[in-house]
Amino acid sequence: MRRLLLATAVSFGLISSAHAVEGMWQPAQLPGIAATLQQHGLKLDPKTLADLTAYPLGAIVSLGGCTASFVSPAGLIVSNHHCVYGALQLNSTPENNLIEKGFLARTQGEELSAGPSSRVFVTEEIRDVTPAITAKLGASMDGAARHKAIEQAIKAEVKACESDGYRCDVYTFHGGYSYQLIKQLEIKDVRLVYAPPESIGKFGGDVDNWMWPRHTGDFGYLRAYVSKDGKSAAYAKDNVPYQPRHVLKVNAKGVEAGDYVMVTGYPGRTNRYRLADEVRSAIDYTYPTQIGVYQDTLDIINTAGKADPKVAVKYASMVAGLNNYLKNFGGQLEGLRRADAVAVKRTQEAELEAWLQKQGGAQNAALAADIGKLRTAIAAERADRERDLALGLVNRAALFSTGVRLVHLAKERPKADLDRDAGYQQRDWVRIEGGLKQLDRRFDPGVDQQFMVYGLTRYVKLPAAQRLPALDAWLDGASTPAQLKTKVAALYAGSQLDRQDDRLKWFAADSKAIDASSDSMLELARAVQPELKRIADAEDARAGDMSKLRPRYMQAMIAWKQSQGLPVYPDANSSLRVTFGNVQGVAPRDGVSYAPFTTVAGIVEKDTGVEPFNAPKAEIAAIKAKAFDGFASPKLGTLPVDFLADLDITGGNSGSPALDAHGQLVGLAFDGNWESVSGDWLFNPQLNRSIQVDVRYMLWVMHHLDHADNLLREMGVGLR
Amino acid sequence: MRRLLLATAVSFGLISSAHAVEGMWQPAQLPGIAATLQQHGLKLDPKTLADLTAYPLGAIVSLGGCTASFVSPAGLIVSNHHCVYGALQLNSTPENNLIEKGFLARTQGEELSAGPSSRVFVTEEIRDVTPAITAKLGASMDGAARHKAIEQAIKAEVKACESDGYRCDVYTFHGGYSYQLIKQLEIKDVRLVYAPPESIGKFGGDVDNWMWPRHTGDFGYLRAYVSKDGKSAAYAKDNVPYQPRHVLKVNAKGVEAGDYVMVTGYPGRTNRYRLADEVRSAIDYTYPTQIGVYQDTLDIINTAGKADPKVAVKYASMVAGLNNYLKNFGGQLEGLRRADAVAVKRTQEAELEAWLQKQGGAQNAALAADIGKLRTAIAAERADRERDLALGLVNRAALFSTGVRLVHLAKERPKADLDRDAGYQQRDWVRIEGGLKQLDRRFDPGVDQQFMVYGLTRYVKLPAAQRLPALDAWLDGASTPAQLKTKVAALYAGSQLDRQDDRLKWFAADSKAIDASSDSMLELARAVQPELKRIADAEDARAGDMSKLRPRYMQAMIAWKQSQGLPVYPDANSSLRVTFGNVQGVAPRDGVSYAPFTTVAGIVEKDTGVEPFNAPKAEIAAIKAKAFDGFASPKLGTLPVDFLADLDITGGNSGSPALDAHGQLVGLAFDGNWESVSGDWLFNPQLNRSIQVDVRYMLWVMHHLDHADNLLREMGVGLR
Repeated sequence: MRRLLLATAVSFGLISSAHAVEGMWQPAQLPGIAATLQQHGLKLDPKTLADLTAYPLGAIVSLGGCTASFVSPAGLIVSNHHCVYGALQLNSTPENNLIEKGFLARTQGEELSAGPSSRVFVTEEIRDVTPAITAKLGASMDGAARHKAIEQAIKAEVKACESDGYRCDVYTFHGGYSYQLIKQLEIKDVRLVYAPPESIGKFGGDVDNWMWPRHTGDFGYLRAYVSKDGKSAAYAKDNVPYQPRHVLKVNAKGVEAGDYVMVTGYPGRTNRYRLADEVRSAIDYTYPTQIGVYQDTLDIINTAGKADPKVAVKYASMVAGLNNYLKNFGGQLEGLRRADAVAVKRTQEAELEAWLQKQGGAQNAALAADIGKLRTAIAAERADRERDLALGLVNRAALFSTGVRLVHLAKERPKADLDRDAGYQQRDWVRIEGGLKQLDRRFDPGVDQQFMVYGLTRYVKLPAAQRLPALDAWLDGASTPAQLKTKVAALYAGSQLDRQDDRLKWFAADSKAIDASSDSMLELARAVQPELKRIADAEDARAGDMSKLRPRYMQAMIAWKQSQGLPVYPDANSSLRVTFGNVQGVAPRDGVSYAPFTTVAGIVEKDTGVEPFNAPKAEIAAIKAKAFDGFASPKLGTLPVDFLADLDITGGNSGSPALDAHGQLVGLAFDGNWESVSGDWLFNPQLNRSIQVDVRYMLWVMHHLDHADNLLREMGVGLR
Repeated sequence: MRRLLLATAVSFGLISSAHAVEGMWQPAQLPGIAATLQQHGLKLDPKTLADLTAYPLGAIVSLGGCTASFVSPAGLIVSNHHCVYGALQLNSTPENNLIEKGFLARTQGEELSAGPSSRVFVTEEIRDVTPAITAKLGASMDGAARHKAIEQAIKAEVKACESDGYRCDVYTFHGGYSYQLIKQLEIKDVRLVYAPPESIGKFGGDVDNWMWPRHTGDFGYLRAYVSKDGKSAAYAKDNVPYQPRHVLKVNAKGVEAGDYVMVTGYPGRTNRYRLADEVRSAIDYTYPTQIGVYQDTLDIINTAGKADPKVAVKYASMVAGLNNYLKNFGGQLEGLRRADAVAVKRTQEAELEAWLQKQGGAQNAALAADIGKLRTAIAAERADRERDLALGLVNRAALFSTGVRLVHLAKERPKADLDRDAGYQQRDWVRIEGGLKQLDRRFDPGVDQQFMVYGLTRYVKLPAAQRLPALDAWLDGASTPAQLKTKVAALYAGSQLDRQDDRLKWFAADSKAIDASSDSMLELARAVQPELKRIADAEDARAGDMSKLRPRYMQAMIAWKQSQGLPVYPDANSSLRVTFGNVQGVAPRDGVSYAPFTTVAGIVEKDTGVEPFNAPKAEIAAIKAKAFDGFASPKLGTLPVDFLADLDITGGNSGSPALDAHGQLVGLAFDGNWESVSGDWLFNPQLNRSIQVDVRYMLWVMHHLDHADNLLREMGVGLR
């Protein structure tokens, strides 16, 4: 298969002969692959890339879900437009729509708060805590005990690390092969500095999402503020700009085809080391099933939304999310099938196991046996997947899940914080309360009831052994959609949880008060919560088993790869990573070749005047006049917009800086091509490409269209 | 605009620097552009290309709607799979589905009749008859008289030319600037020789229609038979293969990127010399309106078809046609808008008129004045377009149009044949009778009534001046959809025209009998037909005016181009043409480049096992085994499937041979790319490409998959 894909790519002359280097590398791994880095063109000493406190990693921050970087000594931060979108939304009114118009603060005084929940996380320390965690684990522990022990050891590490203004987390690598404590400065005063209009920042919108050729100017600027004494502090007028340790230098000349480029950031999650059985389950069950469920959910919302526009508004963001996932899942399926991913994984596993056998020895035999156990555990997980799906769907009914959460919280509250279930510790309470407050904004009782009926319709089809006695007792034999509808309607009629003050009352109440309540939803939640908790505990126990078995698989994998002289990068887990490669196009299929750069000519081609292809008139005019102010690429003979590279990125990398061979800023990663959607499971060096907005386009838009010369000066960009 | 598109193409290296030569040239024009032909790579003497009786044009034939060529001295003909599709359909049964399985006659005895209406037309003579036609025209004639005079002059020419086994037609060039009499041998015994299975011949189906990259093996073979004495004759078992004057030589090595290539064939119709106002009308009215009408029509059929599958079967071919047009119209709109076609035409007209003015003189002033009159006539046509559309839609009701046709025929029949209206002459009767017989196969009374109601709903919105008194009288005030529905239901209830024997009875009847009939549809038809005839006559009169004005515009255009040293080719009119250029890819939009060749790797990529992407398993296996039997391209390193060239083709060119610099067969044209759909109005050398199936793929499929070595030997193809 690989060979076939290779042959496809070879039929074109455009593809660089440099092979992509798959991998989201931990900074500490980079000196170990120094030769490869240099072979691809890195001019920096690879050792400096391992140092979080040195240039350039010292300039990279997380926004929590997005990546960003400092680009001025006064805490100016650049990231994607879609990462500053929330800040634009928060500061927009129908009369003054910043999303539509864009925004530029000409002075620091004009900057707008990005909201109390906006964060900038500056990673200051990464420390291996594997010994501290594994020391707590006994060989004889069962899954539940193991899970509990790990959870508590992690909580203890976090507690010992966290101090005012700092947030600590233990990240699990290779499914438990190692644990690393990551300490981050948590900056809480984040301000909106600049964003182009949506017609540039989101040009192409959902139509072009995951697509190439792309012409999106997906960039925007924030600024980090701290108290006058340099500490993390909530928004206050007299806070001062944070002074970062390092600031990315901007290379206003950008990169050209074939040049070295790397992306540093916080990729969220990949499944690169899943077993063939898991990939098959995703292809045969998970994605197709979820596609069906999401379409049904959209039908429910759209029908209700047509009848009442207010309902449509409440679920607009859910609809956008569902559509986004639908497109993504379609891409996953297409990519996994096209890559014959199950067969690839199957072959890899067979080779690994053959190697173990060839090595011989008790240790390798034990590893092989554990891989067998991992397969068994995965099969057991699969046996419960339909139950888990059905309960998950019932839980999508917000009033039901709220009831269960209130019951659960009241039970955890009396415990010592370290003994509380994850998600119910004191640090989680603000989030829970916020959720209870905000529920009204995304809740319609009619739709919510339909969600519950939909989930129950699936639930009642489960075999007896998988069902919840308390839920069955409440159902009292109801099984047809009409019966379920009646049942749920009565449930909602007897509950006041749709009232915010009522929810907040129960948030503050103890179990005794909740037990005494005659609210129908709380009554159901009281009955069902222990059974849901039992299932959650069983899942924890399984996770405990997995935390033993997956590392064994990875141990075998690492040994095998080591025998071939190959390093192994861990799956993405939202920790800081580096991926490197070269600017290059792609031949996505026979007869088709994509250039590494798009140019402004494509904006004129795509422009229809109608969102999402409504480029600003001034931009169209400037492009036609070739008014590129010295930012055009001499090689391309015009101004580039976005570019492709063979980098290994995923969600969470949004906003990550693309750096050249000297570590200077040449763009921002913001998406992958369609073929890379399934890259989370299997990276295909021939087809997977990251998409970056080109620094030259960013600077041109800022200077020529939005006159943000104050920022260009602050970033040290000279104007020609 | 042109410059902008050019810039887009230039950003890639794949595009040949040779500029396309727009033009569907009359063979006689080719010696006049010999230098250009040779510059593009032609090695033949351009003079031989002007000779219909010489090689290669002597080998080119028309199938009536498709083009084909002789490839053996025993009358073997190659054309597209979709051009032999009807013959496959005719010979298929549910038990023996030749479309699905393909067909190969291993001997001439096994060949199957392609049906009594199959034809092969061999052009034997093209003669300019302009003087003979124009001699009949007086300067003072009004439009009606002029139209009549032209029609009669043409009829006379045809009559004088036609003899047993020969068909003659007068073709109008440049809207009446010249007339040419074309004499063709009409071969009536056509037999099916070979076609690959549909999974090759129609691989990609409607999904890939008009698309690139393409992987369709769109080819098939027929054989022409004549009586033993060499004359045209209907199918008879002891007919013998026709011996063509010339036979194309096959170049089994094919062509490579950049090579000279030309396509000879019978393009149907283009609108290259329409005025800006006409293009605007197409963009603003015709295409969008027809898209709406076609969608409504599909809704009517689909709703009825869901309720009754038999109805779906009856309208399946109409549905396929409507969907095909919908896709096409979408492409027209997209292409015309993207090319800013109205502005391009407007500029061209302004330049032409400026040139006329600069030349000065009474003759040029008269030309300019006539261009003004042409614009006025076009505006008048536009004023009636909504009426013409509404009546056309009413006429889509087959029972209504049948009634009108029967009434009309009965009136024409008593006249001398030359005086009969076009379409009602003796030569047309067989066709009319056939239509009356076959009506049942594609007629459902419920759907037909809905068609009539749909058309009437549009008709009743017309202003009073545009309405038909007789139709209004029948409507008797009915105007709401419900009223129209009742009216039409009563009309159909009172008619027997839905019975074949009844229709055939009236076909044989005279006007007196029809006038006496109390069939409700015939009554309506009797009343309305004179008014429809009046409109048709007015249209003829307008056509008569146009036949005076369009040639004047073309006269100016030709003079203007001549002043620049440029020849002018006429719009396509189903007469034999030659288009030439080079094998080359295309950059359809910013960032995207299409290779000139697709390869068999793409078949494996597209294969899903499900129609239309269900390549034969044997083919997939052969591709994976690289069993190309010497047919692979050394340059590509694999077997090509289809290729692009910058040739100027349109519908009717299907099956046209693609010839190399020496006039040898290297492929068959079968489609254009998406961007060329609007090329019928405006040829864009940067974007428009013809799509050919590669001769190497044809030969490989024939040899390796279908073992048609008998045909390869007959064509003189040596096997390696």
